[in-house]
Amino acid sequence: MGKRVAVVLAGCGVFDGTEIHEASAVLVHLSRGDASVKMFAPNVDQMHVVDHMKGGPTEEKRNVLVESARLARGDIQDLSKLLVKDYDAIIFPGGFGAAKNLCTWATEGKDCSVNAEVKGVLQAFHGEGKAIGLCCISPVLAAKVFPGCEVTVGRENDDKYPNTTDTAAAIVQLGCTHVSKSVAESHVDEKNKVVTTCAFMCDAPLHEIFDGIGTMVQAVLKLA
Amino acid sequence: MGKRVAVVLAGCGVFDGTEIHEASAVLVHLSRGDASVKMFAPNVDQMHVVDHMKGGPTEEKRNVLVESARLARGDIQDLSKLLVKDYDAIIFPGGFGAAKNLCTWATEGKDCSVNAEVKGVLQAFHGEGKAIGLCCISPVLAAKVFPGCEVTVGRENDDKYPNTTDTAAAIVQLGCTHVSKSVAESHVDEKNKVVTTCAFMCDAPLHEIFDGIGTMVQAVLKLA
Repeated sequence: MGKRVAVVLAGCGVFDGTEIHEASAVLVHLSRGDASVKMFAPNVDQMHVVDHMKGGPTEEKRNVLVESARLARGDIQDLSKLLVKDYDAIIFPGGFGAAKNLCTWATEGKDCSVNAEVKGVLQAFHGEGKAIGLCCISPVLAAKVFPGCEVTVGRENDDKYPNTTDTAAAIVQLGCTHVSKSVAESHVDEKNKVVTTCAFMCDAPLHEIFDGIGTMVQAVLKLA
Repeated sequence: MGKRVAVVLAGCGVFDGTEIHEASAVLVHLSRGDASVKMFAPNVDQMHVVDHMKGGPTEEKRNVLVESARLARGDIQDLSKLLVKDYDAIIFPGGFGAAKNLCTWATEGKDCSVNAEVKGVLQAFHGEGKAIGLCCISPVLAAKVFPGCEVTVGRENDDKYPNTTDTAAAIVQLGCTHVSKSVAESHVDEKNKVVTTCAFMCDAPLHEIFDGIGTMVQAVLKLA
């Protein structure tokens, strides 16, 4: 029997939602790993809507769940409906949406607050010893909710990872351990069953990001 | 030197734009094939905006180029700026957006009209003997613009391909040849340098669709 995995989305588009290629890579690797997958997103307004051509915010309002449904081809549920008992593992792709719509990291860094449903779900999976996978900026969710955990957001002091050094410093300030790992690798915190990989935190060709996410998904399925 | 490939998008979301996982798969396989990629989309309003949770249209207006920029992480240009001399091949992912925003197939079938820029670009690549890749419903663009060409939109008379039989019949009415191929395969029309695969026209696990798109991309790069 394949593992049952919940995937939590945060909109649809790197600058205001889930990073599309990270989500797609997660789903391809889960499919290849014979997992049965359900997608979820919080039913809240996006922090803002970014015009991805111009790079700046617009006056529009969009809903995180409705936009996430684009990635899910319509097959998605309100995060409030997620029953932890029905799943063996949970995965959070990255993109700014994770830092804007699932928590306030984008504006408040380590002093951020985490969406109550997201926090509750993370604590519930963790409390039952179920595997948690995160990539790109999403590992800050684990760092905020599980003080003392180990995560990676890439390689520190390496120009190919332009935001890793500052993000890693904030993670350390939260009492966690940052483990420098390349885009090709993931880090497994065996004690907390937290698996992380840096994905688009590295300025790498897309297939390398895809493969790195594959190592994260495979480690999650192994732990699950 | 890697091949230079233009990818043409039609929005962001299966029901009113480009099918997200098809576009992402195309880009992953192009990256692995060492291609240099630029993305383009027409600067026009979407036919409509579909709420992907509910499945029905909304009152919103969105622009095809601006929404396609979500898939391109902002790195995209107006299709009118595409210079054929700068590319060795062109690829059109699928999704309803191809049949709604790039042509009117969704409402008019074989009697559809094709967006003038899309038609011009297709004719220009074809005229210069450059490779053209299409997947899912996008092969109807080739069938409409290149009478007599050979394409696949899946396997006829097979429940796993619910829309293939009707689409194939319309393609034949346009004077083209429909070649039945599974989701794992692509068809190469050597004479026209048109490569097609059915992708989400088949109700298959995502990794099988991903791999099928890989065969299309590899065939395009070989022809380019």
